[in-house]
Amino acid sequence: MTETTIAFPARAFDPVGVRHAVEARLTVFLDAKERLAAAQGFPAEVVDVLRDLVLGGGKRVRPVLCVAGWYAAGGRGDQDPVVQVAASLEMFHAFALVHDDVMDRSATRRGRPSAHEAFASHHSGRPGAAKLGVDAAVLLGDLTLVWSDELLHTAGLHTDRFAAVTSVLDEMRTELMYGQYLDLLGTGCPSPDVDAALRIARFKSAKYTVERPLQLGAVLAGTQAGFCAALSAFGLPLGEAFQLQDDLLGAFADTPQTGKPIAEDLREGKHTALLALALRRAVGGERDLLMGLCQGIRPEPVQVAQIRAVLEATGARAEVEQLIDECHGRALRTLEDAGLPPAAVSVLRTVAATLIGPA
Amino acid sequence: MTETTIAFPARAFDPVGVRHAVEARLTVFLDAKERLAAAQGFPAEVVDVLRDLVLGGGKRVRPVLCVAGWYAAGGRGDQDPVVQVAASLEMFHAFALVHDDVMDRSATRRGRPSAHEAFASHHSGRPGAAKLGVDAAVLLGDLTLVWSDELLHTAGLHTDRFAAVTSVLDEMRTELMYGQYLDLLGTGCPSPDVDAALRIARFKSAKYTVERPLQLGAVLAGTQAGFCAALSAFGLPLGEAFQLQDDLLGAFADTPQTGKPIAEDLREGKHTALLALALRRAVGGERDLLMGLCQGIRPEPVQVAQIRAVLEATGARAEVEQLIDECHGRALRTLEDAGLPPAAVSVLRTVAATLIGPA
Repeated sequence: MTETTIAFPARAFDPVGVRHAVEARLTVFLDAKERLAAAQGFPAEVVDVLRDLVLGGGKRVRPVLCVAGWYAAGGRGDQDPVVQVAASLEMFHAFALVHDDVMDRSATRRGRPSAHEAFASHHSGRPGAAKLGVDAAVLLGDLTLVWSDELLHTAGLHTDRFAAVTSVLDEMRTELMYGQYLDLLGTGCPSPDVDAALRIARFKSAKYTVERPLQLGAVLAGTQAGFCAALSAFGLPLGEAFQLQDDLLGAFADTPQTGKPIAEDLREGKHTALLALALRRAVGGERDLLMGLCQGIRPEPVQVAQIRAVLEATGARAEVEQLIDECHGRALRTLEDAGLPPAAVSVLRTVAATLIGPA
Repeated sequence: MTETTIAFPARAFDPVGVRHAVEARLTVFLDAKERLAAAQGFPAEVVDVLRDLVLGGGKRVRPVLCVAGWYAAGGRGDQDPVVQVAASLEMFHAFALVHDDVMDRSATRRGRPSAHEAFASHHSGRPGAAKLGVDAAVLLGDLTLVWSDELLHTAGLHTDRFAAVTSVLDEMRTELMYGQYLDLLGTGCPSPDVDAALRIARFKSAKYTVERPLQLGAVLAGTQAGFCAALSAFGLPLGEAFQLQDDLLGAFADTPQTGKPIAEDLREGKHTALLALALRRAVGGERDLLMGLCQGIRPEPVQVAQIRAVLEATGARAEVEQLIDECHGRALRTLEDAGLPPAAVSVLRTVAATLIGPA
């Protein structure tokens, strides 16, 4: 079985090593952009704000999954292109966060001021600094997306490989944008429609965060359509579990744990499966409390505690926890059924444990 | 000279034909996206709003210049890739317009409601429709940028040609974003600093609208660095003239001519060379009137007429007209000095005439 061992060097997949390699690549890229700005006389705060966001935190989930997909598909040899594509994914994610925070008017991200707040502080002496901050963040997001492209364009991929990568990537990006749009339409009008909430989660998260990054890595390793289908069967339920877990964090976690404002989803009236399940079952005063979110009323801290109590009392929290277990279990079972090489299964089990915890 | 004639088929460069070919390509692309949205159950208004913007008007300046660069550099044979890259440029421009209108809160574009207004109308029954419109337009701009990439990725370019194209393109996009940021910083605080105004114009317009599109076409034809340098020498002063002309239109044109709101630049207090020159010379009440723009006060129609009178009386308008002539002349003189093939010179003269009018 020596050949299989070489083709699937599962032991070489090291999530911590991937994080470091991707962060090193992003640092080199941003350093070059800082020098470019200095040479051209462009304002330095643009790269400064982006650097704080990109290098100031983040779990690097998508880059790790991209490299995992590469290993799982039997990738070997020069890792440079896959690390660079993974770095491009992380830069793309930074773009998505900047614009997400603009749309949600989130004050913090990764425990620091969000990009529009950082620009507003930088220009605090000017009239209209808040609007300037938002506009600058729109531009910074655009620039970050363009720079994510630049990382991709300079990854040294040849025609066929590049075409396979961009085919997955273009689909991923379109799905995310529509997912964000559906999220926007659902915000402030949550309903008992659990399926609609899961559909948003599917596009915004299961596909964007799990399925597509795994597939990107796999096509970088030159895999075929069959393996990509297996990665979908594994990645979609796993991604759904990941998003449901994020919904719980969004409702129950305190800031230090996530770097986001407390109970942000609740305050924004996000249409999550958690809230939809609670709305199905709440009656009387409990229902009125939840419906306040539907009218776009941002709850005060004391109400947040009450809403959390309703999420518990209606059993919505327990049901989401059960859904997470089910999705997680379904993802793991596909690994047994798909007839994948043992080393690929091992990598993907590591992925599941990293995202959700032990089975 | 038969060989030269084949290598530089100047007579084949037909700006009207380019416009039609690019519009046909964009129509096919958007039709496919409409079918995709229907198949996936995505809301149809996303493609609808984009289609109205992309196909509802526009002079297609950048696509025309891209194809002109291709002809000027001796491009021949299959035009499909160059038309597709030109279409990608136009899609990129649509992205820039959507976000520009968000930042400026422009109500109209190309004589129709701007994207954020169109989304707000679509959702007019909802509370917070105006904010939803703006957020949706941020996402639409993002999606449009992603789709501009998809057009590029599917242009069928091979590794070396693709690397040459993206090298120009990545630079162009970064320059535009910084130019937009400089523009943002200058808006609402115009000063007598003509150089600063010309610098914004250089990045936002001369490079983005003229130099880079010409170079993109040239590298698609496989040209070398020397020819790209000649295109810079020609394109930058021509682009400056084009922007100065746009400044005059922005201050003096009525809506039907440009599709933009009347005197939009003045109302937004844009830091244009026109305004900077007027500020240098205005005294007393004239100066107070202009300085009102510096404090971000949007003038009423009657004041717009007064500001126009000041732009005339100070001689700023005449000086800008003279600058346009000088830049235009400088661009044309480079064609005589660069030792370019006569057919290339002929294409570039057509470009100058299309942008600025007869010399």
